[in-house]
Amino acid sequence: MRKRLVEIISVGNELLTGHTLNTNAHWIAKQVTDAGGIVKKVTIVRDEINEIASSIRESLNRKSGWIIISGGLGPTYDDKTLRGLAEALGQKLVLNEEAVGMLERKYRKTSNPMLTAPRIKMATMPAKATPLENPVGHAPAVMMKRGSCTIFSLPGVPTEMMAVFAKHILPVLKRKIGKLVRIETSLETTNVMESVIAPYLDRVIASNPKVYIKSHPRGYSKGVSVLHINLACEASSRKLASNYLRKAVREMKQSVTDAGGKVKEI
Amino acid sequence: MRKRLVEIISVGNELLTGHTLNTNAHWIAKQVTDAGGIVKKVTIVRDEINEIASSIRESLNRKSGWIIISGGLGPTYDDKTLRGLAEALGQKLVLNEEAVGMLERKYRKTSNPMLTAPRIKMATMPAKATPLENPVGHAPAVMMKRGSCTIFSLPGVPTEMMAVFAKHILPVLKRKIGKLVRIETSLETTNVMESVIAPYLDRVIASNPKVYIKSHPRGYSKGVSVLHINLACEASSRKLASNYLRKAVREMKQSVTDAGGKVKEI
Repeated sequence: MRKRLVEIISVGNELLTGHTLNTNAHWIAKQVTDAGGIVKKVTIVRDEINEIASSIRESLNRKSGWIIISGGLGPTYDDKTLRGLAEALGQKLVLNEEAVGMLERKYRKTSNPMLTAPRIKMATMPAKATPLENPVGHAPAVMMKRGSCTIFSLPGVPTEMMAVFAKHILPVLKRKIGKLVRIETSLETTNVMESVIAPYLDRVIASNPKVYIKSHPRGYSKGVSVLHINLACEASSRKLASNYLRKAVREMKQSVTDAGGKVKEI
Repeated sequence: MRKRLVEIISVGNELLTGHTLNTNAHWIAKQVTDAGGIVKKVTIVRDEINEIASSIRESLNRKSGWIIISGGLGPTYDDKTLRGLAEALGQKLVLNEEAVGMLERKYRKTSNPMLTAPRIKMATMPAKATPLENPVGHAPAVMMKRGSCTIFSLPGVPTEMMAVFAKHILPVLKRKIGKLVRIETSLETTNVMESVIAPYLDRVIASNPKVYIKSHPRGYSKGVSVLHINLACEASSRKLASNYLRKAVREMKQSVTDAGGKVKEI
């Protein structure tokens, strides 16, 4: 079980001022869930070494199998994630020769190839870090191990984060935890309040232990209460998951009708 | 300083599966920042009592002035925030008569006015909770104190969360911490890589200690590197903040030009 648990740490003041919406964590959570993992927690922290380090330490103490960090790998002063990671793990920051090679090959193609101090900073990593090539940007990503936990540190620029995830993380996740197929569907109900459907929901949940069911109120349309009910199931095969899910959907639809509401799959 | 620090805790499995984007925390962060607060951390946790309780306890230990929780106040089984909050504070869950009155008045207007068990659940709160009327939905919000920290627990439905925030939280925040005016602007630079601008950025930051400056790579447009540089300033008056900000913008523009790039305010 523990090896399926994933924590996500997003680094960046812009995510804490309302300047930038945290689409990175949302995208990573979807990828992890679809690959058979369970995201246990997401934390957003400021660009401060102590904040980054303490969040990583707290996350390690919670014993997830994976920690996926994004943001703070760039060349500027406020890119502090690798310093926070080094502090959390009690490792020195050192120049990583493999990462230097990656940067050399990238900048060699530009009109400005010199490895200046800000560029060298992107190759300065915790002593035991493994650099991961960034397919679309400059800053290398990082992989590290601590006990049975694997830590990945990705860039915050969404296109770079996604490219690194697809190349270096997804294949590993699928190999290590991708034993289950997950499918989901949603129902939209009208004309029945959440407080009225609640006891019916409890019964459908009790008779479908393999299916995760959750209601989301969507307010009122033309004075009539609208709810979305999300149903999801994981099983060892798509056919088995589908059988579990169809049974729960049938019972849920019947319950809504019994409670005086209307229902459709969306 | 501590009284300006705010932590946000978002509760809901749907935020951890990639099903729902966490727009609530983003919106709250913007409101808090504009009101003069500093969001120190955002945490997203699953709909599990222990997870909710331990996140609230960790947050209290970090000594923020405010904790704003959203999600998990509804009538269904998986709405567990108040149980988590009671556990975190070591208080019993009790029926809150004032909250019962709020629900009675709301449901009296519907075709289905009875206070059934799922509705009573929404009035079952930690012993020392103060219920806050929900202007657009049913579930009352909650305010609690622990030492010098004020905890608010809001519904997760965005329209309800925003209405409760506007009515009950924003006026309090403005009165307690709204002594500073915050303004910001952004520059877009082209034709200069972040690793090239980095040392110029350091100098502008050093000579403008009142201004927060951060660069955000925006990838490439027609083969040319694009950066956004966000500049923000807080001061006791708009005029003072504007003076600080204009000086930093002038220096930043000159630096980009010196580094061979083009720049405009966006």
